[in-house]
Amino acid sequence: MAHTVELIAVGTELLLGNIANTDAQMLSQELSALGLNVYYHTVVGDNPQRLRAAVEQAAGRADIIITTGGLGPTCDDLTKNVLAAAFGRQLVPHRESAERIRAYFHRAGRVMTDNNLRQALLPQGCVVFPNDWGTAPGCAFEAGGRHVVMLPGPPSECLPMFRACAAPYLRGLSEGVILSRTLRVFGMGEAAVEEKLRREMNDLTNPTLAPYAKEGEVELRITAKADSDTGALALMVPVEARVRQVLGDLIYGVGVSSLEEVVLPLLEERGLTLGCAESCTGGLLAKRITDVPGASKVFRGSIISYCNDVKEGALGVDRKLLDTYGAVSPQVAEAMARGAARAMGCRVALATTGVAGPGADDQGNPQGLVYTALWTGEKALVRKLRITGGRGRVRLVAASHALDMARRWLTGLPERDFNQ
Amino acid sequence: MAHTVELIAVGTELLLGNIANTDAQMLSQELSALGLNVYYHTVVGDNPQRLRAAVEQAAGRADIIITTGGLGPTCDDLTKNVLAAAFGRQLVPHRESAERIRAYFHRAGRVMTDNNLRQALLPQGCVVFPNDWGTAPGCAFEAGGRHVVMLPGPPSECLPMFRACAAPYLRGLSEGVILSRTLRVFGMGEAAVEEKLRREMNDLTNPTLAPYAKEGEVELRITAKADSDTGALALMVPVEARVRQVLGDLIYGVGVSSLEEVVLPLLEERGLTLGCAESCTGGLLAKRITDVPGASKVFRGSIISYCNDVKEGALGVDRKLLDTYGAVSPQVAEAMARGAARAMGCRVALATTGVAGPGADDQGNPQGLVYTALWTGEKALVRKLRITGGRGRVRLVAASHALDMARRWLTGLPERDFNQ
Repeated sequence: MAHTVELIAVGTELLLGNIANTDAQMLSQELSALGLNVYYHTVVGDNPQRLRAAVEQAAGRADIIITTGGLGPTCDDLTKNVLAAAFGRQLVPHRESAERIRAYFHRAGRVMTDNNLRQALLPQGCVVFPNDWGTAPGCAFEAGGRHVVMLPGPPSECLPMFRACAAPYLRGLSEGVILSRTLRVFGMGEAAVEEKLRREMNDLTNPTLAPYAKEGEVELRITAKADSDTGALALMVPVEARVRQVLGDLIYGVGVSSLEEVVLPLLEERGLTLGCAESCTGGLLAKRITDVPGASKVFRGSIISYCNDVKEGALGVDRKLLDTYGAVSPQVAEAMARGAARAMGCRVALATTGVAGPGADDQGNPQGLVYTALWTGEKALVRKLRITGGRGRVRLVAASHALDMARRWLTGLPERDFNQ
Repeated sequence: MAHTVELIAVGTELLLGNIANTDAQMLSQELSALGLNVYYHTVVGDNPQRLRAAVEQAAGRADIIITTGGLGPTCDDLTKNVLAAAFGRQLVPHRESAERIRAYFHRAGRVMTDNNLRQALLPQGCVVFPNDWGTAPGCAFEAGGRHVVMLPGPPSECLPMFRACAAPYLRGLSEGVILSRTLRVFGMGEAAVEEKLRREMNDLTNPTLAPYAKEGEVELRITAKADSDTGALALMVPVEARVRQVLGDLIYGVGVSSLEEVVLPLLEERGLTLGCAESCTGGLLAKRITDVPGASKVFRGSIISYCNDVKEGALGVDRKLLDTYGAVSPQVAEAMARGAARAMGCRVALATTGVAGPGADDQGNPQGLVYTALWTGEKALVRKLRITGGRGRVRLVAASHALDMARRWLTGLPERDFNQ
């Protein structure tokens, strides 16, 4: 039977919303890779009674309890006291930790206030996790068949200490590994994806298949448990094959997190440069492209034409097209893409024009009507879209469609018609 | 006695570390502004037994239970079923919600799979929260002295639905009125703001003063409880006066959520048009400006010049400047702003050029070195910045500085030197 883990984050700042519980996210990823099942995350404030209650609760439903936070020098850092008491341990001074804390302040050229030495008080007989990233050491001990692990709260200390100290401690306890593969899908909603793969999602137990809605996209995660990596990978093969059989080229990547992450390397491999012309996306398309480090290797720039004068002046869109068809039209989308390539001297160009909303535009075009265009250097392709949701979603999905056009062309796929 | 709230986030993707529980962070901020005490966050997977256990747990220690997630169309969306069962309610079809979902797909010109209608099954007699940001409606009901609120999981639906529907519902439960005013601060870090206002933050009880770190900014929230709005407002006056005395013109707005929301109306009032030239922000500046509905009234466009050819060609930056000073220089920042105004025929222009990273650029300029420029139509101002943090933060803070330059000039404030 696999071990079950509960994460308890300690800190009133979490309950006030000052920070998000990113420790829980990072540790959960690490724990599932160790083959450990996390069933609950709990967040509790700097309150001894409520922390004690949360710990007793966790001890009743998990066999590994990992706390984050509350190991620091101040009086509201009470995690060690509460957990030591809950599991009948004494806190005793740990000489080596005290030395490390003194040395830390010495290196920093800072005066150490005595309360910092509270951090060197640790549960008797625990495994000490030295803190090479801050001052408060972590620790682990077993009591009454439960394993207790305490880690510092700052993410810059919590994650490295987990990897360096807690992971080896826990690896000894876990049977087997869990591996996941995530397939990214663009062009079909979560409900429709689920409809097509319902049987697999319901029936499969190892590996499991689960869908996650990402803004405007779907992520499918295949998770397998086995004694070894190769065993887990072997279990995934037929499931991934089945998913690919059903969704085909709507799957744009494995283990990637965005279309832009896929499109930029494809351009680079082919020695192509990219430029954009944006109306309704208003810079979001370029922003997403330049979110990717090293985008400058292929990305030349984008001309955001939020008025017709700029479409005409900076992009060289023929005023007649604007007057005849309006800015939200396939003709103008194509002209914008061609104009971007011309104005910025790039081989490939993407363009977006449409109605982000709220509401229809002054021409009576409905919110969500968007045209995206791709100029390949030889031909232009245009996609007509009716995107649902608010202004933010329309802009996001419009940018994704532009990137998807490039993705399909760069991988030799036929352009798709989304205008059913 | 103040109500106590427990947040329960439902989703295996949270326990796998696929995403962080940002809903809990956002809702905790909103709830504390309503004067409600949040004592626990719980995260549980898409598992009916464990969700049921978490709900019963919460019912024993909180009088308001707010769930996020698990309202969608797929079969692992089980929040409504479990909570209805836990509190002895039937799920019944809600005609209006079904119509809204049908209409949502109709507007999209998309085929609606039947499982989408599961989203219109709601607990009998509940208050329905229509979803204007997606498909799954939320709801609230009272049972056995407990209030249950269910919200969708996607942050883009959860937060707006909370503000539009759940907050008014909850406000009705608390005795008296709780009002809060949020002051937005740009140009000083959270630690420094806390340092300057620590006494007020620690000592004040009604109203309370609390800081919230927002990416690159600080939000200060004054929250007062009284019998009436006027009473609550009166309590806030001296606290706001004190905060303004300390932070002065670093406070850029009250009840606003971004610099762009402040800058666009200021431009409109003066009948000014705006354009941008972006290098290191890569479209983020224009994206933020066009996030604001109606931006087209003042915003003409942005030229994202991610290479020198585009700086020269589309913005008319003198090649000599680029060769002599390099793209990351005050001279080029100014030339980009002037060039944007010229190329797009706008009166006011903002420009950014710098090193977003990762790492230094090929000229040896360090990551985080950024110049932002403002062209007012008569004169150019340039800000030199050393922005800490990773690529994402450098880009975000650089865009904020550009907007802050416009904000200060438009409100007649002297430009600030951030180059200490």
